[in-house]
Amino acid sequence: MSSSPATIALDAMGGDNGPESVISGAALVLKKHPNLRFQIFGDEARIWPFLDKYPELKAVSSVIHTDKMIRSDEKPSAALRSSKGSSMRMAIESVKEGHAMAVVSAGNTGALMALAKMVLKPLAGIHRPAIASIFPTMKGETIVLDLGANVLVDAENLVQFAVLGSIFAKVHMSLSVPSIGLLNVGSEDVKGPDHVRGAAAILSEIDFPGHYHGFVEGDDITKGTVDVVVSDGYAGNIALKAAEGVGNLAEHLFKKHMLGDPLGILGAMIAFFSLKRLKKNIDPRRYNGGVFLGLNGLCVKSHGGCDALAFSSAVGLAAELCEQNYIERVARHIENLMEQESFLSRDL
Amino acid sequence: MSSSPATIALDAMGGDNGPESVISGAALVLKKHPNLRFQIFGDEARIWPFLDKYPELKAVSSVIHTDKMIRSDEKPSAALRSSKGSSMRMAIESVKEGHAMAVVSAGNTGALMALAKMVLKPLAGIHRPAIASIFPTMKGETIVLDLGANVLVDAENLVQFAVLGSIFAKVHMSLSVPSIGLLNVGSEDVKGPDHVRGAAAILSEIDFPGHYHGFVEGDDITKGTVDVVVSDGYAGNIALKAAEGVGNLAEHLFKKHMLGDPLGILGAMIAFFSLKRLKKNIDPRRYNGGVFLGLNGLCVKSHGGCDALAFSSAVGLAAELCEQNYIERVARHIENLMEQESFLSRDL
Repeated sequence: MSSSPATIALDAMGGDNGPESVISGAALVLKKHPNLRFQIFGDEARIWPFLDKYPELKAVSSVIHTDKMIRSDEKPSAALRSSKGSSMRMAIESVKEGHAMAVVSAGNTGALMALAKMVLKPLAGIHRPAIASIFPTMKGETIVLDLGANVLVDAENLVQFAVLGSIFAKVHMSLSVPSIGLLNVGSEDVKGPDHVRGAAAILSEIDFPGHYHGFVEGDDITKGTVDVVVSDGYAGNIALKAAEGVGNLAEHLFKKHMLGDPLGILGAMIAFFSLKRLKKNIDPRRYNGGVFLGLNGLCVKSHGGCDALAFSSAVGLAAELCEQNYIERVARHIENLMEQESFLSRDL
Repeated sequence: MSSSPATIALDAMGGDNGPESVISGAALVLKKHPNLRFQIFGDEARIWPFLDKYPELKAVSSVIHTDKMIRSDEKPSAALRSSKGSSMRMAIESVKEGHAMAVVSAGNTGALMALAKMVLKPLAGIHRPAIASIFPTMKGETIVLDLGANVLVDAENLVQFAVLGSIFAKVHMSLSVPSIGLLNVGSEDVKGPDHVRGAAAILSEIDFPGHYHGFVEGDDITKGTVDVVVSDGYAGNIALKAAEGVGNLAEHLFKKHMLGDPLGILGAMIAFFSLKRLKKNIDPRRYNGGVFLGLNGLCVKSHGGCDALAFSSAVGLAAELCEQNYIERVARHIENLMEQESFLSRDL
């Protein structure tokens, strides 16, 4: 844990619910992480009324006013050009200037990623940043990255993702040596695209802060076969969305069939607490937060439609990564990686 | 519908449950498709006892004896070398020789795919075959291909998959103009790998037996946004497995929480019929069957752990594709595709 309190910059204007979810979410996080401080960027006329409701949060927060915000439907390229002075950009710049350690926004994903890359810049030695998220599994939780920052990557990028994910797993799951799997179409050595097989060859040889398990398949994510699943952003994004889709379908069908007749409703009422526990167990709000890893500063994307609880999950991720010095630890391991012959000698 | 009865070749020795599931499954299919005939390949000493139970099936089936079978854990390359005279290979060869129109096996997937490609050969003009399956969605069903026959494909291959999938949708869902989406990481035109964007450009121009909808994302599969989702085998396989994984997780958690306390159990008992309908709605056995499309003959892979109901779904797919002349229709459309300037003029 770092001794000085961590400050988190919040874009209050991102997301469908604006300052309300952001501020109520931050108040929730403060209960678990009482040493945090916040900078809240956005329209102060809309921020203060909510902040006044949470005196403890108010005491550790500063509000930085701006009228300008990036709309969620703006194209990232257009948003980037007109981003100066917007709540999202100002929050990111605060991390760049060292006033905050992390930024959390529920705003436009493409704009956030582009701005974070442009303003924060990749860590020395990192070629591509990645987006990581936490999935519920049969055994607990698994971290998956990249979920869409980069469609095309090479073997070396995937190896760096394995380092980024390993430190994340150490922080989030308190593991000493997290196991790492490469997402592929089969577990045999000969299968899959070149960049995935190339990464497997490197990970089998190098010294990095995790244990290389081998290839894993799409269903290994929820089986919890490994602690970290590493993928390019193409397959990773498609797997994430396909998984979300099945979750939504299951919920839809459950409601349709259970709540579609009187006995179903009665059964659901009697099993109320069981269903509540089930819902809590797989509540997507508990897993909200895509963390951009590999930049000079932490940036967490919250789902746009988040409520306070969901936003608090995203801020909670930022808080634990800040408090456990994620960036410094990654920087050290990437430096170590870049010095290893088995990583460097490859013609990638 | 073809006037002469279709014959389906069954590999009785594939799958964990061997001839029992295969024969009971075939008997189930015969009720819906009374014009079918079967050739059953495998150990007759194990086949006859089951066949004797189903006089109607027995009346339209011939048994072709062989002692030899391909084990499910054999490497495809090794299985291929020693495949001669095996039940799987003999069943495929029967399609090649015109004795049967389709082959169904629950055996070794890699061996089945390799043997089917080698023995049946791709249809004229088809560069790569694909594996297609049916997914349940919010609106009904969606066909997804390729689920893993080819990791790497080019734009032209994806366009051919769109043709293969369109005709499948016409047959299975009785649609006149099925809608086709390309699986990608976002719906904007500029996103995604070259082969996916290239296929989008061609599909927007050519005349083919479907309507090109545009890019779709992973969650569009279960949303039912389009009738056919086209992907390379890398992303398609990972999406399929990730989806299966979430389904398994949902079932696991439901049982854990509902059946973990007395009120949950009571609720589940009262809601028994609702839950039964729910289960039927998403029963993976109803969606069992990966169809190899694009070969000179139909080959359907059933899940290895299938029971009779699951195997009957795979055979049912083979039956409807045979009865509606899938292969002839695809051949005609591929010929038409190859004559179109907007397809051929591309440097692919």
